[in-house]
Amino acid sequence: MNEQTINRIRKFTEDRDWDQFHTPANLAKAISIEASELLECFLWSDTEYNIDEVKEELADIMVYCRNLLDKLELDEDMIVNAKMDKNEAKYPVSKAKGSSKKYNKL
Amino acid sequence: MNEQTINRIRKFTEDRDWDQFHTPANLAKAISIEASELLECFLWSDTEYNIDEVKEELADIMVYCRNLLDKLELDEDMIVNAKMDKNEAKYPVSKAKGSSKKYNKL
Amino acid sequence: MNEQTINRIRKFTEDRDWDQFHTPANLAKAISIEASELLECFLWSDTEYNIDEVKEELADIMVYCRNLLDKLELDEDMIVNAKMDKNEAKYPVSKAKGSSKKYNKL
Amino acid sequence: MNEQTINRIRKFTEDRDWDQFHTPANLAKAISIEASELLECFLWSDTEYNIDEVKEELADIMVYCRNLLDKLELDEDMIVNAKMDKNEAKYPVSKAKGSSKKYNKL
Repeated sequence: MNEQTINRIRKFTEDRDWDQFHTPANLAKAISIEASELLECFLWSDTEYNIDEVKEELADIMVYCRNLLDKLELDEDMIVNAKMDKNEAKYPVSKAKGSSKKYNKL
Repeated sequence: MNEQTINRIRKFTEDRDWDQFHTPANLAKAISIEASELLECFLWSDTEYNIDEVKEELADIMVYCRNLLDKLELDEDMIVNAKMDKNEAKYPVSKAKGSSKKYNKL
Repeated sequence: MNEQTINRIRKFTEDRDWDQFHTPANLAKAISIEASELLECFLWSDTEYNIDEVKEELADIMVYCRNLLDKLELDEDMIVNAKMDKNEAKYPVSKAKGSSKKYNKL
Repeated sequence: MNEQTINRIRKFTEDRDWDQFHTPANLAKAISIEASELLECFLWSDTEYNIDEVKEELADIMVYCRNLLDKLELDEDMIVNAKMDKNEAKYPVSKAKGSSKKYNKL
């Protein structure tokens, strides 16, 4: 997300005085609820989905993720790279290639 | 997310030949499951959470969101800004300021 | 669920003094988290699932639903029948037969 | 849930020829989505919720749980009691009393 988009999200919250509702716990609920709305796009069919609805629900998730990053003063690239370090160790190419098994069943 | 991080995520998937599992429907499930793991950090208490667990779960969500953006060839800033256009229209400052009501109850 | 099973669930909570954690909001989180664990059984494949894991996750959901019914002093059959009244009205057989569309798109 | 309510749910599905959509994977998605709608009742406040909405969302979850039990030919009391056996072993009263910690952190 570029700085302009990030600032737009921050201003949106600020203008509405919504920071008071954005506790980490509430934002976690919000992300989970939006993720379920994304899932609903694929409820009865994996292949016949409405791409416009998918775009909107995915955007909602990413906006709330940005709110949570801001709230906790986290750097997106830093936490993602730290997790990728772990993922790479948990799923070595030699074992995980072509397999959808969870790391503890590889 | 910067280009280097995005490329790392893409390479991770590619090296493991996991693109075959990354249908939009499966990624929607994955995002929803990771969002629930984030929520679990706040299950019995809103305030006593483990920040390291929160970071990891939030990172997992963002990695799968990136996978879905890639799969559907979407531009993150474009879809977020399109949604922010809608949000700004649905929640005018004059009505929404200081209120946590849903737009259809404002 | 028969009375014996219901009483076992109640005694389990009581013996551990867990009623203090069972606010309606926390139980809603718990149900959502367990529902995601059920979903995880079907994450990368719709057909190759572990039936023993499915049974356990489904049981977890139903236990927390029972906790919530108890907490709010609700009668399961009463609320389900009230919702079925609505469902039958929203999805008339003539329109809904053989269709997976949501009522507002029928 | 009594036999009459269970039969009403079965007839509802049958009359609409919806069994074709009720794969275990789809029902797991449906349960997860409804659980999120229940969670949404508590999104910005743990205490100011609409009890009528809570009842409806909880009923939706239980209806889909019933659909899944039927689909997999499972007995509700049997799977719940099997899980309670495990829960009682994982959370001995002596260790778990008054604590909201997960069993692996007790």
